[in-house]
Amino acid sequence: MMSTYTDIKTLQFILFEVLGFKEVLELDRYADHDKESALMLINSVKDLSDKELYPFFREMDEAPAHYRDGEIIVHPQVKEYIAKSGELGLIAAPFGYEEGGMQLPQVLVSAVAWIQECANNHLPNYSGLTQAAANLIDHFGNDHLKNTYFPRMLTGEWTGTMCLTEPQAGSSLSDIVSTATPSGDHYLIKGQKIFISGGDFKGSENIVHLLLARIEGAPAGTRGISLFVVPKYRPEEGGDATFNDVNVIGDYQKMGQRGYCTTHLSFGDQNDCRGWLVGEPHQGLKYMFMMMNEARIAVGRGAAGIAMAASKASLQYAKERPQGRPVEDGGNKDVQKEQTLIINHPDVKRMLQYQKAISEGSLYLVLLSSKYYDLSMYHSDPEERQKYSSLLGLLTPITKTYPAEKGMTSVSNGLQVFGGYGYCQDFILQQYFRDIRIYSIYEGTTGIQSLDLLGRKITMKNGEAACALYGQINATLARAEKHAELEPYAQQLKGALDLNTEITTYLTGFAKEGNYRRFLADATVFMEFFGTLVMGWLWLDMAVSSSEKMNSTESSFSEDFYKSKVNTMKFFFKYEMTALPGLAETLKNGDMTTMENDLNVLF
Amino acid sequence: MMSTYTDIKTLQFILFEVLGFKEVLELDRYADHDKESALMLINSVKDLSDKELYPFFREMDEAPAHYRDGEIIVHPQVKEYIAKSGELGLIAAPFGYEEGGMQLPQVLVSAVAWIQECANNHLPNYSGLTQAAANLIDHFGNDHLKNTYFPRMLTGEWTGTMCLTEPQAGSSLSDIVSTATPSGDHYLIKGQKIFISGGDFKGSENIVHLLLARIEGAPAGTRGISLFVVPKYRPEEGGDATFNDVNVIGDYQKMGQRGYCTTHLSFGDQNDCRGWLVGEPHQGLKYMFMMMNEARIAVGRGAAGIAMAASKASLQYAKERPQGRPVEDGGNKDVQKEQTLIINHPDVKRMLQYQKAISEGSLYLVLLSSKYYDLSMYHSDPEERQKYSSLLGLLTPITKTYPAEKGMTSVSNGLQVFGGYGYCQDFILQQYFRDIRIYSIYEGTTGIQSLDLLGRKITMKNGEAACALYGQINATLARAEKHAELEPYAQQLKGALDLNTEITTYLTGFAKEGNYRRFLADATVFMEFFGTLVMGWLWLDMAVSSSEKMNSTESSFSEDFYKSKVNTMKFFFKYEMTALPGLAETLKNGDMTTMENDLNVLF
Repeated sequence: MMSTYTDIKTLQFILFEVLGFKEVLELDRYADHDKESALMLINSVKDLSDKELYPFFREMDEAPAHYRDGEIIVHPQVKEYIAKSGELGLIAAPFGYEEGGMQLPQVLVSAVAWIQECANNHLPNYSGLTQAAANLIDHFGNDHLKNTYFPRMLTGEWTGTMCLTEPQAGSSLSDIVSTATPSGDHYLIKGQKIFISGGDFKGSENIVHLLLARIEGAPAGTRGISLFVVPKYRPEEGGDATFNDVNVIGDYQKMGQRGYCTTHLSFGDQNDCRGWLVGEPHQGLKYMFMMMNEARIAVGRGAAGIAMAASKASLQYAKERPQGRPVEDGGNKDVQKEQTLIINHPDVKRMLQYQKAISEGSLYLVLLSSKYYDLSMYHSDPEERQKYSSLLGLLTPITKTYPAEKGMTSVSNGLQVFGGYGYCQDFILQQYFRDIRIYSIYEGTTGIQSLDLLGRKITMKNGEAACALYGQINATLARAEKHAELEPYAQQLKGALDLNTEITTYLTGFAKEGNYRRFLADATVFMEFFGTLVMGWLWLDMAVSSSEKMNSTESSFSEDFYKSKVNTMKFFFKYEMTALPGLAETLKNGDMTTMENDLNVLF
Repeated sequence: MMSTYTDIKTLQFILFEVLGFKEVLELDRYADHDKESALMLINSVKDLSDKELYPFFREMDEAPAHYRDGEIIVHPQVKEYIAKSGELGLIAAPFGYEEGGMQLPQVLVSAVAWIQECANNHLPNYSGLTQAAANLIDHFGNDHLKNTYFPRMLTGEWTGTMCLTEPQAGSSLSDIVSTATPSGDHYLIKGQKIFISGGDFKGSENIVHLLLARIEGAPAGTRGISLFVVPKYRPEEGGDATFNDVNVIGDYQKMGQRGYCTTHLSFGDQNDCRGWLVGEPHQGLKYMFMMMNEARIAVGRGAAGIAMAASKASLQYAKERPQGRPVEDGGNKDVQKEQTLIINHPDVKRMLQYQKAISEGSLYLVLLSSKYYDLSMYHSDPEERQKYSSLLGLLTPITKTYPAEKGMTSVSNGLQVFGGYGYCQDFILQQYFRDIRIYSIYEGTTGIQSLDLLGRKITMKNGEAACALYGQINATLARAEKHAELEPYAQQLKGALDLNTEITTYLTGFAKEGNYRRFLADATVFMEFFGTLVMGWLWLDMAVSSSEKMNSTESSFSEDFYKSKVNTMKFFFKYEMTALPGLAETLKNGDMTTMENDLNVLF
């Protein structure tokens, strides 16, 4: 039963037959990679996931990370796994050869991270966050920081974190009050950070915190925030290390993802916590956004992985569980007949199809964002880099949000397939249900992502990003129209695009008038609208590739495989795309209910 | 902080100013009751809830019911609470005076059960199930059964259960295989029952199981199921009691509602389990449906209670938590300003309004079903009784489903208001989130309810029930049209009614052709459509009553109170009713995706 948590075939289909992986391989940076090396990597990570991740998934929930006597106790597999992923070069994978990495395309880094997250969404976070922290030091740190921290993070000996949130500053980072006081080559750091994932755990050799703080006299708001490297133990010349006054004072017991510790840290209780400035003073949030954007894609990826794992578990159950009989013509049931498997009931099929649509579509969304990242970083043409950077910027809040929000519904459908068993601890669905709920909170809530999407990404550079996206979508439409079976769906998507143009023009009109309250009031509804539209495009795109391959001699999969993708596209257009006009209606509605200032009086 | 889990004002508003409580009081059976006695009861149950329910809510989750050495250990408050609710006459409340009850209208029984379920959704189930089991014995049991069990169930000395599910027979009750062999005045029972709520617990004096089993030679399917009273201890003449070979062999550890035990029972391991037939042989499912229908309303009520409690908790948090600043005209934020309370952010307002709409609307739905029950049972005019019976039948699957399904989303919104804190065990939202998930599974899943709604209730007697419902809705529309402010919403609801007529005619057309597979394939989507429509009606109805009262000298509440109801109606029409045309589009779509027989091959 080891193979029931993921879908390697669909991963390969998206990578090699849908996504345009070739465009990535054609970049100079990735010249050494090809499909075969990618397949080898996928297989070895699947093997790692079978052995080191999936078997520990349930017990990490049952014996969660917890605070005891000044330490965070985690499952012993945490240390094992981090070491293994370091050994296999997975943490170093995206970095350049000269830095000890594999120079692996981000799209492949994402692909193999996703496999691991399907298997166990707790463990890969430890090394993923370390990779992202190392990337930040690599890009913006000076040689001292790079030499001191970077190599040992890539091996997994030391792990990394991002320290942003404070008790009064969660969604509102401008209110950070942790301080940094200049003192020779470093700063003295003082302050508390809460909700710090992987912030400390017993047995870790060192933890490298990337921390936001304010240098004395800095301007108010986000323009006065600087970024520091703050290790738990500061390396001294000669190889010794001194405790750096980074104290763990508690943890958060979460409803789910209980194997991944969430900590409360206090810096500088003894006034001996040293931090080293990354880059220029007061530019910290700009740097941190590199890590945050990476983390946002990773959040969407994790949610996509959980949705997939839940989908596979409920599909397996539906194929094995007999219950009831199908309704026959005339409305009767023949009780003399044997019970049917529940996969034969239309409502169970609906729930399974929904999960398939959300989990596979979300995977494509995540991989597409990663491909855009590769092209935005390494394309030889600066204009192309700019285009893909815009596309990545536009898709980032959607990639963070769609798999998290719809993934919850998807996993809930998976639980429902199990009936009462799904609600019981003997079955895994309840764990997926609890785990996935954090993803719409992590790294900027859905509300924050929606403000980013509508308030920044849609409007930036006069709509350049949306324009580039339309270009991509139109390319899919042109291919779709060659297939009679797909043509009606292409028309439906065109209609949705027109509706989007209408809505966007209507809403941005308020911004042009300076009426930002009205412009952004229903940003979350816009996110649902736009996210659904993007997902409709991705499904049509998968259906197009499937239709092309079905009639080709070059296909790698069975006709049934391709047919199931076309079917799922049809499902998505029937059950999800139909919501768009209603959402548009809501967005156009001028009723001020969610903006009334006196709502708190009325409640 | 004791008052943050419920909303007594809104309860009173619905009961006394919206629902037409007077019509219930006018029934002969309820001649002794009036508004004042109802208010006294509400106050005393609120007091009970403050003292005996809410304080134990969290600890019942943290130290859940569990199986140990052949017994189920529950929180000590279970026994305390059942005794208290017996003492106060709450279990006996709906029964006639001659039976030791208060002859209380069901609408009031529901109202005070809801208060308790807001406070603690675990405890009231024990006595609620006892009440429903007693009611079944009262209606269909012979004098021997009535005299032996009924009185001690009303005092709470003995509790009751319903034993339906078996390992192979959950949604499919026709597959029940527990057997009953005639033996003198009783039957010998043999079989296993799973997922039995309140099935056994240490310290219970006796537990009276209402159990479905097959008498030898009975016809196959649901027409061969009989109903038995099977006590854990069988009373002997002279007052002694003998163990009746009812064995608890395990329990189910659930994700939520962990204070309410769910057990696995084995009957007749020693061939000494006696059961007494209720009513006629092979008629058991018909009798049991009385209890199931009652339980379905109770499930919706419980979900409505959790949604309300979560709504109140997140509202309180939103009024106390500062974070960020509102977007100003021009799109900027002034970071020099103090942070605002999060209730002032539009997206938080949206989430709070959503919760208000769902939780208050669900309460009205539950109370309305209960009112229909009262009128269907005790109206002097048989035609009226028939009308209300149809209305009750139609609303039952919706009352079971809407609060459960939308309540989940509502509670999830409440959790999101808390941000990361909502996901942590220090805060209560995560418990509500876990607890409410069971309600769409209990007593027939959402899929089963949807088949009941579309396949039976909509079509029965040539659409008589839907026709009666239209009559009720039209009465609201006529009143709404007198208020200029409400007129556009009345028009919108009319449009939705027309759409419903179109959809229903379209779908039932397939039934008339004998094509039941097509007719019922998207029953769950129809449930969402019809449930939303009904909720839109209920909100318009509340807005009408509010508008009438606002300009009246007889109003009991402040203008702000009434204004908030009108506002919430507008919210519901803007954000929820707009989904109807899209759902209709899905229902009209002839794509066969959810019916393909080979879907399991394709997956």
